Amino acid sequence: MSNVKAERIWSRLMSLAEIGATSDGGVTRYSYTELEAKANERVRSFMKEAGLETGYDAVGNLFGVKKGKTDETILVGSHVDSVPNGGNFDGPLGVLAGIEVLESLNEQGIELSHTVKVMAFKDEEGSRFGLGMIGSRAVAGILTLDELEMKDADGVRIKEAMEQQGYHPESIAEAALNNVRAYIELHIEQGKILEQAGVAAGVVSGIAGPCWLRLKCTGEAGHAGSTPMNQRRDALVGASLIIAEIERIARSTPDLVATVGQIQVKPGGTNVIPGYSEWTLDLRHVHEDIRNQAEAKIREAAETIAKERQLTLEIEELQRISPAPCAEAIQETIKGSLIEEGIDPVTLPSGAGHDGMQFTGKWPMGMIFARSKDGISHNPKEWTSKEDVQTATSVLYRTLLTLDKKEQL
Amino acid sequence: MSNVKAERIWSRLMSLAEIGATSDGGVTRYSYTELEAKANERVRSFMKEAGLETGYDAVGNLFGVKKGKTDETILVGSHVDSVPNGGNFDGPLGVLAGIEVLESLNEQGIELSHTVKVMAFKDEEGSRFGLGMIGSRAVAGILTLDELEMKDADGVRIKEAMEQQGYHPESIAEAALNNVRAYIELHIEQGKILEQAGVAAGVVSGIAGPCWLRLKCTGEAGHAGSTPMNQRRDALVGASLIIAEIERIARSTPDLVATVGQIQVKPGGTNVIPGYSEWTLDLRHVHEDIRNQAEAKIREAAETIAKERQLTLEIEELQRISPAPCAEAIQETIKGSLIEEGIDPVTLPSGAGHDGMQFTGKWPMGMIFARSKDGISHNPKEWTSKEDVQTATSVLYRTLLTLDKKEQL
Repeated sequence: MSNVKAERIWSRLMSLAEIGATSDGGVTRYSYTELEAKANERVRSFMKEAGLETGYDAVGNLFGVKKGKTDETILVGSHVDSVPNGGNFDGPLGVLAGIEVLESLNEQGIELSHTVKVMAFKDEEGSRFGLGMIGSRAVAGILTLDELEMKDADGVRIKEAMEQQGYHPESIAEAALNNVRAYIELHIEQGKILEQAGVAAGVVSGIAGPCWLRLKCTGEAGHAGSTPMNQRRDALVGASLIIAEIERIARSTPDLVATVGQIQVKPGGTNVIPGYSEWTLDLRHVHEDIRNQAEAKIREAAETIAKERQLTLEIEELQRISPAPCAEAIQETIKGSLIEEGIDPVTLPSGAGHDGMQFTGKWPMGMIFARSKDGISHNPKEWTSKEDVQTATSVLYRTLLTLDKKEQL
Repeated sequence: MSNVKAERIWSRLMSLAEIGATSDGGVTRYSYTELEAKANERVRSFMKEAGLETGYDAVGNLFGVKKGKTDETILVGSHVDSVPNGGNFDGPLGVLAGIEVLESLNEQGIELSHTVKVMAFKDEEGSRFGLGMIGSRAVAGILTLDELEMKDADGVRIKEAMEQQGYHPESIAEAALNNVRAYIELHIEQGKILEQAGVAAGVVSGIAGPCWLRLKCTGEAGHAGSTPMNQRRDALVGASLIIAEIERIARSTPDLVATVGQIQVKPGGTNVIPGYSEWTLDLRHVHEDIRNQAEAKIREAAETIAKERQLTLEIEELQRISPAPCAEAIQETIKGSLIEEGIDPVTLPSGAGHDGMQFTGKWPMGMIFARSKDGISHNPKEWTSKEDVQTATSVLYRTLLTLDKKEQL
């Protein structure tokens, strides 16, 4: 038994949900606001209850520390900011579970070899400034002064917002951590894989960074009535064939996801053959080489279809974020913890981005996912049951203990 | 030789093009305007030069008559109104060619058995009030008082516009004609079939009335990153498969045209799986039964794809205009005329609507198409060469003479 207390973590989740609560049960809590400062102070009070040493770093990341025999640190993190009208579990669960694990250890008088630092990172969601993962970037030492020039909808720079809240953008380098043994995060799944597998928690294989493309297809507009089918260069039919092929390629590549979320055609008249179409592609996989191979297949298939149809295709790259595979050693550790909890280990990729992305390649990074009801997230209906919160936190507890003891990661 | 004079018809086309001319060489000439009245008066002067009796009917259709031995009438018609910034051939060619044929007959002292009436119909295009074919509807006796309540962008009713121009909406029934032997119209093709066949003119098999549907597909929106491919109900992938299938069905049905000219998806985020899609379908064929069969095939295929993909499909009917097949006897007559002109007869459907649609089933109706350069129409670049105008007018001349002589149509 891990001895983590479901009631305590649950009551803290509900307490935190009061700050920035929306009328339909969700929460809106942007970073570098009074509201988030209030949420952080409440979390800090929980950290103090747990017996942790607390503080804020230069960019405003909140931390609570349980000292170990060495300064080498295991980081346990997540965030307390939210998307607009978001849910009450995305972020807070990971922070509060980390506190709970350390409080449980302290209650039992268990000392660790390594120092453990629970962190609430600033602005993971990016809802305010469009950057996101600001706190974890700073901790990884890769946040730049240029990035702090990004503005919110009111024209306020990240830099100014930091200063308004009493932090120190000129000292962001001081937020960078060293001597870190591992980073571990518990987060809700935001999908249905664990629910369909019937398990409370699972092990994340990696964070699938998105590659975003815009495909632009030019054919020839024409009269819907007077242009025979064999004389057409229809940019929407071309798009349709390519979109169907994108899905076929994605389905034949395990764990790859490919999404066309937007499409537009011109001229756009009911009785006019589309002479132009454009659509976006969001392509993700935990492994960059597999994503690249799939992208190459899609590009080739798209070019082939365009050529057959006498269409001109242009592909624009909108963004390309490297996927972040989780460290094998941490995945293995989490699997062991799941088995100890009597759970058949399910390994799944994270389609959504998380703070751990900033640490991959720098420190061993791993994530535990907790089951999400109906896979709903970024929505007031976001839900993880109290039982699942307990189980997932126990998995975090066991994982932390093993990571502390392991000779090498 | 038909003795029609290319220079005369060409100079009249160019003269008419001055009225409502746009800066880039096109024309904007809406019905029931001073501009169109001026155009009609110029056409009337050509009718008088041709030796015809002229007048306007209750709705403002201009006519020029060459009396025959009987009052049974062959109608030769088209229109002089245009779409906004349209071309100089769509409409005027048919009216001026009709005048030229009668002028040529008069110059040669040729008398006909039947009376011939050349007509310039009011508002074929429908650009002003959204109804279209107002004059031909009146001549067919099917224009209703309700339809005259339709308004232009300034809120002016058709009825009021008629009155402003000195016509008599209360007497529309008087514009209806009886004792009509046949209706024949020369029009530009507005497509590329004759150009690709290398012939100046062709015979129209019928006017392919459009059936317009809106297909609405509901699936389930979801996170592009956290929803595996096999758990998706993607409304755009469903749409793409259906659109590809629509094209396949259309290609396998001779002379059918099917066009998806508009598509929209929701929610419409780059990283969100579309939970909803809707798109239009414009389906045309000269024969209603073939169009209906194709529509049934498309509906079945769409339902099958939707079912396989766990999508909900709803199909809304936007409009359903009956196709108007041309009379076999007139098609045969035109073919004979083409052969006499040394032209291999090419039979082609009209995808666009024409005044003759109002007469089908009432009187034998037929159409001659003249070659359109690059298939361009409803555009200042619309063009038919002087040689093709001469040839097509000669075909109209021969056809009129044969229709006049034939014992039965």
